[in-house]
Amino acid sequence: MSAGAVALRLRVRFAETDQMGVAHHSAYVVWLEAARVEWLRKRGTSYREIEENGLSLAVSSLSVQYRSAAYFDDEIDIEVYLTEAKSRRLRYHYRLNRVADGVTLAIAETTQTPTDRSGRAIRLSEPWLAELKQYVETK
Amino acid sequence: MSAGAVALRLRVRFAETDQMGVAHHSAYVVWLEAARVEWLRKRGTSYREIEENGLSLAVSSLSVQYRSAAYFDDEIDIEVYLTEAKSRRLRYHYRLNRVADGVTLAIAETTQTPTDRSGRAIRLSEPWLAELKQYVETK
Amino acid sequence: MSAGAVALRLRVRFAETDQMGVAHHSAYVVWLEAARVEWLRKRGTSYREIEENGLSLAVSSLSVQYRSAAYFDDEIDIEVYLTEAKSRRLRYHYRLNRVADGVTLAIAETTQTPTDRSGRAIRLSEPWLAELKQYVETK
Amino acid sequence: MSAGAVALRLRVRFAETDQMGVAHHSAYVVWLEAARVEWLRKRGTSYREIEENGLSLAVSSLSVQYRSAAYFDDEIDIEVYLTEAKSRRLRYHYRLNRVADGVTLAIAETTQTPTDRSGRAIRLSEPWLAELKQYVETK
Repeated sequence: MSAGAVALRLRVRFAETDQMGVAHHSAYVVWLEAARVEWLRKRGTSYREIEENGLSLAVSSLSVQYRSAAYFDDEIDIEVYLTEAKSRRLRYHYRLNRVADGVTLAIAETTQTPTDRSGRAIRLSEPWLAELKQYVETK
Repeated sequence: MSAGAVALRLRVRFAETDQMGVAHHSAYVVWLEAARVEWLRKRGTSYREIEENGLSLAVSSLSVQYRSAAYFDDEIDIEVYLTEAKSRRLRYHYRLNRVADGVTLAIAETTQTPTDRSGRAIRLSEPWLAELKQYVETK
Repeated sequence: MSAGAVALRLRVRFAETDQMGVAHHSAYVVWLEAARVEWLRKRGTSYREIEENGLSLAVSSLSVQYRSAAYFDDEIDIEVYLTEAKSRRLRYHYRLNRVADGVTLAIAETTQTPTDRSGRAIRLSEPWLAELKQYVETK
Repeated sequence: MSAGAVALRLRVRFAETDQMGVAHHSAYVVWLEAARVEWLRKRGTSYREIEENGLSLAVSSLSVQYRSAAYFDDEIDIEVYLTEAKSRRLRYHYRLNRVADGVTLAIAETTQTPTDRSGRAIRLSEPWLAELKQYVETK
């Protein structure tokens, strides 16, 4: 898989809509996380195992630009790009596109802080950091 | 507070609506849980402390009868009744009413199983069970 | 697709977990709905188009028996069975199994009431009802 | 109520926690929205009535800086500041503080675009815009 390919394809769930008739803006935040998990899996890393080993990647910042509404049952592709990998911070960019017409629905960015089980910030191990650095793209 | 009085008053959040223009049926399940937490608090028990001490009350069954739709920004009262207290099972009944017109929106029932941190079923301690039994009502 | 085959396979999202370390019981309710949508799609019916034509299938009752915990990143299969099809009520049964070990996580039942855009109960059209009746199973 | 006072006090729901043992970062996004609704109400405006009249305030951008974790049952105060009011864009800033110890949990910013029922961007009416401008603060 090339670095910035689609990490996750999903469908908008009915429960994710709101009374405006569109996907609620908070649903995107959940989708970004699911896409990060798939991005890791496609690079051979299970976020579940990471957590079981006591490391978490806590979201320290989040920004989303909403460009076009997503509707119930829309299929959406989420492209994920790792744009920074430091021992104390990872940064991802995202592009969400509707499959049916290719329209970009949103772009987004998150940063993650490695923490231990108690929530204290820690450093990523050198081997894993080195591996992640291979995937960094300038977006 | 009398046994079956209102445990929680809340407002329907915009994010809880769906494209039918009503509160999504899954939101009620979250409200029931919040009402149980307040029910405990009003009887001098913090569910947070219970959890910190390693005991959880895992939901083992759930049923909801939806009678009338709830709308964005509606204020809703949730009445909670403890209807069974055994060492291995608690049972609650609920009635959800809209404050503005008194209409009953739903009735519900849940059972909870005491578990330890690993999710294994355990028995409630005798003193706490005895205390809970005082609050049992025949609904 | 045979009547009661798997309608939907999904993964437990991180956002769906709670501090007990398991999928929160309200997440199952959202999954059941997503599975109903897929069940319809696999029988040639788009719930999105149904809604666009002004018909909704409002959940009028819900019950879930939780048997075993689901964990973050678990793959789950949701089997859906239509067990009653009347002009004013549909009834579905569900079985949720973890893919990895085949363990049944929950069984559930919902009833749906056909409504118009204003939320008023209406009758299903005869042709569609006849089609749905073909899929009814005694569970 | 002074301009930037607390718009909403809420408690972290159990369903809003995740397996890290903290409030999931997507919950904050729902809280911000609930706080905007209360901010409007405290200024004499019901967002429900706004929506019933066919105007929506669609979130066009969102950013959150997470500073400290929020825990189950924490009481949180959300301060809301209107920082920009134009005919085609409103901008709010937020500060989320834990009541118990005053710790700032997050700061956030959202922009909203006025839209009609079909989701098309429209202009705010002059009278309402004039009223909103009174509340603008430089943050």
